[in-house]
Order: sequence, then C-alpha cells, then structure tokens
Amino acid sequence: MSKINEQILNEIRKIVQNDRILTKKGDLYSFSYDASFGEYLPDIVLQPQSKEEVSKIILLANTYQIPVYPRGSATSLSGGPLPILGGIVLDMSQYPKSLTIDKENMLAIVTPSVITSRIHEEAEKEGLFYPPDPSSSNVSTIGGNILENSSGPKGLKYGTTKEYVIGLEVVTPTGDIIRTGGKTVKNVTGFDLTRLIVGSEGLLGVVTEITLRLIPKPAHKMTLLASFQSVVDSGKAITSILSSGVLPAALELMDKYCIEAVEHYQPSGLPLDAEAIVIIEVDGHEAAVREEIAQCSEICKSFPGSKVRVAKSEEERATIWKARKMVSPAITQLGPTKISEDATVPRSKIPEMIEKLHIIRDKYKLNLVVFGHAGDGNLHPNIITDKRNIEEMKKAELAVGEIFQAAIDLGGTLSGEHGIGILKAPYMRKELGLTLDLMKKIKEAWDPNNILNPGKMFPQKGQTKVVLTQ
Amino acid sequence: MSKINEQILNEIRKIVQNDRILTKKGDLYSFSYDASFGEYLPDIVLQPQSKEEVSKIILLANTYQIPVYPRGSATSLSGGPLPILGGIVLDMSQYPKSLTIDKENMLAIVTPSVITSRIHEEAEKEGLFYPPDPSSSNVSTIGGNILENSSGPKGLKYGTTKEYVIGLEVVTPTGDIIRTGGKTVKNVTGFDLTRLIVGSEGLLGVVTEITLRLIPKPAHKMTLLASFQSVVDSGKAITSILSSGVLPAALELMDKYCIEAVEHYQPSGLPLDAEAIVIIEVDGHEAAVREEIAQCSEICKSFPGSKVRVAKSEEERATIWKARKMVSPAITQLGPTKISEDATVPRSKIPEMIEKLHIIRDKYKLNLVVFGHAGDGNLHPNIITDKRNIEEMKKAELAVGEIFQAAIDLGGTLSGEHGIGILKAPYMRKELGLTLDLMKKIKEAWDPNNILNPGKMFPQKGQTKVVLTQ
Repeated sequence: MSKINEQILNEIRKIVQNDRILTKKGDLYSFSYDASFGEYLPDIVLQPQSKEEVSKIILLANTYQIPVYPRGSATSLSGGPLPILGGIVLDMSQYPKSLTIDKENMLAIVTPSVITSRIHEEAEKEGLFYPPDPSSSNVSTIGGNILENSSGPKGLKYGTTKEYVIGLEVVTPTGDIIRTGGKTVKNVTGFDLTRLIVGSEGLLGVVTEITLRLIPKPAHKMTLLASFQSVVDSGKAITSILSSGVLPAALELMDKYCIEAVEHYQPSGLPLDAEAIVIIEVDGHEAAVREEIAQCSEICKSFPGSKVRVAKSEEERATIWKARKMVSPAITQLGPTKISEDATVPRSKIPEMIEKLHIIRDKYKLNLVVFGHAGDGNLHPNIITDKRNIEEMKKAELAVGEIFQAAIDLGGTLSGEHGIGILKAPYMRKELGLTLDLMKKIKEAWDPNNILNPGKMFPQKGQTKVVLTQ
Repeated sequence: MSKINEQILNEIRKIVQNDRILTKKGDLYSFSYDASFGEYLPDIVLQPQSKEEVSKIILLANTYQIPVYPRGSATSLSGGPLPILGGIVLDMSQYPKSLTIDKENMLAIVTPSVITSRIHEEAEKEGLFYPPDPSSSNVSTIGGNILENSSGPKGLKYGTTKEYVIGLEVVTPTGDIIRTGGKTVKNVTGFDLTRLIVGSEGLLGVVTEITLRLIPKPAHKMTLLASFQSVVDSGKAITSILSSGVLPAALELMDKYCIEAVEHYQPSGLPLDAEAIVIIEVDGHEAAVREEIAQCSEICKSFPGSKVRVAKSEEERATIWKARKMVSPAITQLGPTKISEDATVPRSKIPEMIEKLHIIRDKYKLNLVVFGHAGDGNLHPNIITDKRNIEEMKKAELAVGEIFQAAIDLGGTLSGEHGIGILKAPYMRKELGLTLDLMKKIKEAWDPNNILNPGKMFPQKGQTKVVLTQ
C-alpha cells in the first residue's frame, strides 16, 4: 500500500517541480533495482534540484514517517539504494551537476550527481590527479562513490576515497543543512563527521556537495604482467615487492578461473597454464618508474616457472589493462547472475584466502572466480550462476556465508568497498560484536524516526545469513 | 571537595594495584597541567595496566558519576587532558608499552603509551616509514597524538595521522571494550568509528591499542631554504611549486619575526633581511629528488630579491632543519608564556592570513611570530607574553579571537592539529553552526553520563570567547 496519499502528494508538489515527481508504474520500476539482487518498488521518485528541496522532502518524510532512499547511478553491488520498504526514492543522479577545479588549493568541488570519471578528466586537464577509481567510475556518481567509500585498484599507494574527501555539505536525517570539514587537509575542529558520513551508505545524511583533495599527476607509469605457477608464489612475490621499498600504484591479481574466463570471452594473450597472474603498475618520476619496474620484474622472475611481460609501449600497457577490465564482462558470459563479493584480508593472508576460496568452489561445485586488488588485500570472489536456478542459488548462499567467515577468520573484513547494504547485514554482528551497537547509537541519535535508507547495514532481528533467493 | 570517598577508593583498590593509585597532593599537582594554560587538581590519578582495568574504572565512574580524564604525556596545547572538573586522571602514559612491526602487512601495532618517535625508529629498521611527526614526537605518546590527530609538517604529501590509523581497540564511555577497523586499508563494514575516535580528544573512548599503516621508506631526500622579500612572494612560490607537479614532503614557512627570534637565540645563518623564508624538502627516488629540488630552486629564484640555498650534504640539511626546530625554544626566550595557535586556511590564503596576523600584531602591540606548515595551510601564530601581565594577557585574548575569526573568514578552521580542548571551545559554534549539535548527539549517545573528558570541545552556556586569564 502506498505511503503517499493525496494530501502528502500535494505537499510534495509544493516542494518539487511537477516534472521532477515520478509516480507512473513504468517509471517506478526503473528505480526498483540496482546492480545487486532483488526488486523493490518505491511509492514515488523525486528528483530534487537544490539542497533546500532535499531538506524539505526530508522534513516531510519525518512528519509522515516515510522512508527516503537516496540513489545515484545505482551501481551498488550490496543493495545500497534499494527502496526495500517502499516510500520515496531520492534520485540524486538528476541533481544539478557542478564541478569546479581549484588548481591553487588542489581541490575539486563537486555536486553528488557528477560522474566520477569526469573528475578524473577535469583534474588531469590541470595537471592534477584524483586517484580513487572504482571500476564503475564511468557510470557511477561521486555521491554514490563516497557514500559507499568505493575506491578501486589504487588503495595501496594512494589510500581510499575517504582519504580524498575533506569537506561535505549534507542534509541530515532531520532535514538540517550542515557543512562538515572544509578546504584544508588538516582540520581537527570537533569530531570528524566528514569521514563518518563517507561510507555511511546514505544512512546518516544526503550529500549535496563534496570537496575533494587532489594531488599532482604522476608524470610516468609503467606496467608489467607476471604469471605464476602457484597462488602462494604470487602472494610471496607481492610481499617481496612491497618489502623491497616499491609501492606500486596498482597490484592486481587474477586466479586461473578468471584467466580462463577472459581468454574464453576474448583472447587477450593471458597465459592459460598459469595458476595466477599479477598486474603491477608503478607511477611517478620517469627514472624512478624505470628502476622500480625492473626491480618488480626481477622479483617476479625469481619464482620457478614464472613469466614476466613488461609493457614497452603505451599500447602494450593498454592491452594488459584491457585484459584486466575484461574480467567483469567475461565472467558475465558464464551465466546471467553474478554474485560479486569483496571480502578483504590482511595482504599476507591473500594466498591462504585464495586457497580457501578454491576449496569453497570445489565443495559447492560453483563457478567461482577470484580477482582483485591484491596490494590492499581487497579480493573480489565472484560466483557466476543463474538466479532462476534456485538449487544453485541456495548453494551460493552457503558459499557466500563461508567466504565471509573465511575473511573474518583471517583477520579481514566483510567488505572492502562494496558496502554492507542488505546483502551483508546479516553478518555484521559476527564481525563487529558490540561495535555494531555503537554504530546503531549514532544512527538512532541522528535519525530518530529511521527515515534515511531504513533496513540497510543493520541486521534485522533473527537475520543471520544472507538470502539471495526471494 | 573530592569526588572520591572512602567507599569508592576501596572499590578502586579492587581494580587497580595500590602503587598505581596516586592520591598525595604532590602527585596530584604533577597531573594538574599540560602544555597549555590553567591548573586543575584531580582527586585521584590511576595508572591502569590493562584494558580490563580501564573498563572497570569507567564502569565505576559511571556508577558514581565521576569525571575521567585520560592523559598521555600531556603535551597538549589546547587543554586536552586537563581535569577541569576534578575526578579521575587516567594516566595512560604508564600503560604497558608494546610495539610490533608487521613487515609483511606494513603495519605497526602499538599500545597508547608508546612514544611516537619510537614508532619512527622501529619502522625505519624494517625499511618502513610512519610519516606523521608532530614536533612533540620525542615526548608525546601515540595515544595522545591520535586522539588529537596532531600530524606535523608532512600532511601535504603524506596526509594526517588519521590517514595512518586503520584499527583501534577502545574502551567506550560506558565501559565496553570494542574494536574498530582492522588490519586492512580498505574496510567499509559499517560506519568508520576509527576515524571518528581519532581526533575525538578523549571524549568518545579510551584507546588501548592502535593499528597503524606504514609505507616504504623514501630512499632519498633533499632540502632547500629560500628567502623572500615579501610574504606574498613566498606564498606565490609555494603555489607555483605545487602547480608544477612537485609534491614536497615538507613545506615550512617562517615570518621575519620568527627569523629574528631564532637568530637572536642561536645564530643559524638565517637571512635577517628577509620578510619570509620557506624550507622545502622533497623525498623519493634519487633522480626524482634531484630534479624536483632543482625545479623548486628555479621557481624560488624567479622572485625578485629571493635567495636559495640547497643543502649539499646531510650535515647542511640537518642545519636547515635545526634552525626550523629552534623556533619553539627561541620564542620561549622572548617571554615565559607562549600562546601557540594553529589556525589553518586554504593554502592559497596563506599570504593574506599572514598579513592579517601582522595587522593583529601591530594593533595589540604583541610579540606575535608566525611559522608553520605552509604546504597544508596549517600556520602556527605564536603570541609570546607573560601570564602574570594581566593587561597584556587581556590583549592576547582579544588577539586570539581575531586570529580565529580571520581563519574562519578565509574559509579555514580553528584548529589544524592542536585540538579544541578548553581553549577553542568558545569558538566552535561560530565555525560549525548546526554541525556542532550533530557532534553533541554522538557524545550524548555514547556517553550519557558525560563521564569522559567532560568540559572539553563543546562550549559551555554563554561561553563565546577564549579566557586565558583565570
């Protein structure tokens, strides 16, 4: 039953322009899903055009106890924007787009609807660099990126998205418009609400402006691809490289199942006889880059049966990265349903984690491939299946549970960058224990009516395992 | 009147060893001050030896409504550890010291009582690097450092202390022992309580273990000293350097009054005819370092009347840094009372901020010198006076207020790294507006009895200006 009656709709019309109010079934369906699972129809979709409109919508939602689900491009893999209790979808992808590069202070000031890759482009024009680069960056909005704190391959050297967000304008769950942080990297004036809101998955506020720190663009980069006869060797190589003093900009790993998928989909010259491949990119001053790539190459070559290919040209470099970027489309070919996880472990535990993942693969006879950002321990085990195959989905549910448990057992965490959403909420207590209650206290203190993105992150009573089958 | 009666003391004796309970007047006096102003006698000092002891003390404090003031080495410049309402000082400097370097995962796991410079030393032994380096790092504890988020000169290139804290063990204000974050750089499992607690000035929990991220140690560094005929030129030089793509590890600025103070105290070859000097250090690969220092040198030389000295040897490099480190002892010679501020502005506003500071200096006829971390906009205006000179202290109070206002007017912040404590609390509302209430809600939700470090950060009713005179 719709939560929006005629009276409330009339009040909404006083806040938002008519053509920014969507109520037709067809329109509502477009906002019922994201890149994860499940479909939930909202009662109404609003496309606010100013922070004042956002504020008024939230005040109204508080008055009538209507859930509000903020949404960017909906590339979430954990159900972040899904309107699971109906109510209002706040479509922030249509918020006015504004992107200012402040070269002197090395800042970008953007509205949440800006596509992340546009920030990369505009920064580069000024010789600057915005390192976070989630693989969805060509379609995802910066608002969604920062609220999930999704970061991509460069976390090891450059840190996560959080490290670049220094100021926010936010509409709180009770409709106040506030500012956090500012334009300086150093700021200890009170609690760090900026970093609390980054990664809060839309539970603590609707972001309406973001101040990002930029850095000078590295002058050069070089890339190599190394193949190994065992996952353990690849892990040892990674540790040796980091211990040698080299800090690569990217350190990506793919297991043999992943290599097979790519080569099956579009032959990219990846070695089919390898157990694992590692892609290493170093960036910085040219002389440093040359020396460091040679150093990485030597280390990789020291493992029996390993092979190393250093890209000699920009074209070769692009080919290597193309193979890496082919992973997602390639595995999508293996089946219509892709369960993409991002369990993260301390770097030294990567070989052990991959072994555990292969055991889980064999146990449940699932099409499970592993790739990810090995440098920062952020693996992406992907199970490819078909959601209409209920029997296999049930096995996938059990497998996902074991993946989470393996990550926690190895001193890691449920999620490195995809967020908790609805998919991982049941496992929160297991990882966090009492810490979860402290998080809840913040949510309750800021959002007493539980208006903003309700039903996410915190497990429902009795919820202890992930459910992929509806 | 003491808050600790015989019954409470008996209960304390069941928690903490007898020789870790200090009640003598002489002992209490040692814990009544920090590096800022004012003296406040606690009722008792406890030196817990385990997280369980900390937890039990806090539970007891909640039962009897006794304030608890955690304390490291008490180098705070904002009154962070001062027991302004009496009660218990929790002397964490005597907590068991433990420091483990996990080379493979590039982590340091430490207890809060470890002196920060020891982390530098132990990391370097493994070829690793912990960049944050507050000038007190030889005496301050890491616990105090992270709770104030004090960072020192390397914030521009390497980020602040917060960027290196990835996991905490914390006793909450209600006595629960929790863990936040973990051992991975990427972690989006729930709200980021780690970064909320870092910089929380001891209001949200007592930290009992810290996991720090380390990075490979840069192989080389080079340093130059440039003098300028105007502050505006020095600011322009800094902006040009950063726009050229060089990201120095340190970019320090001193105004002429600061130069005079150093040369008067201990002649260090600083140019007395300069309006400002800038010290630039670049680090990284040797070839890159050589090229970058040459680039910085060229840029600085392009300003009329400027002079540049590049350190040719490690000895020369040390001499330049010695002059910089001489600033604090030098200005202490100018008078017994040093009011050390850390107003921080967007980098491009530094020349304007320094001009405003010189106007304030002239207006109140105060001995005000300016130095600081120009690269990240974090200035340290210091007023040297004598707290027994009430008339001058009254002028200093007004001047400090104007300094804060100037920083806010220029889009900056009250504090870059010294914290709010009691000294800056009266100005919080001015900078933060409604945002302050959101911070308060967290404090109230986590610490309903207001047990932990009460009287700090949040302004008392009617408090609108700093009071340096008691």
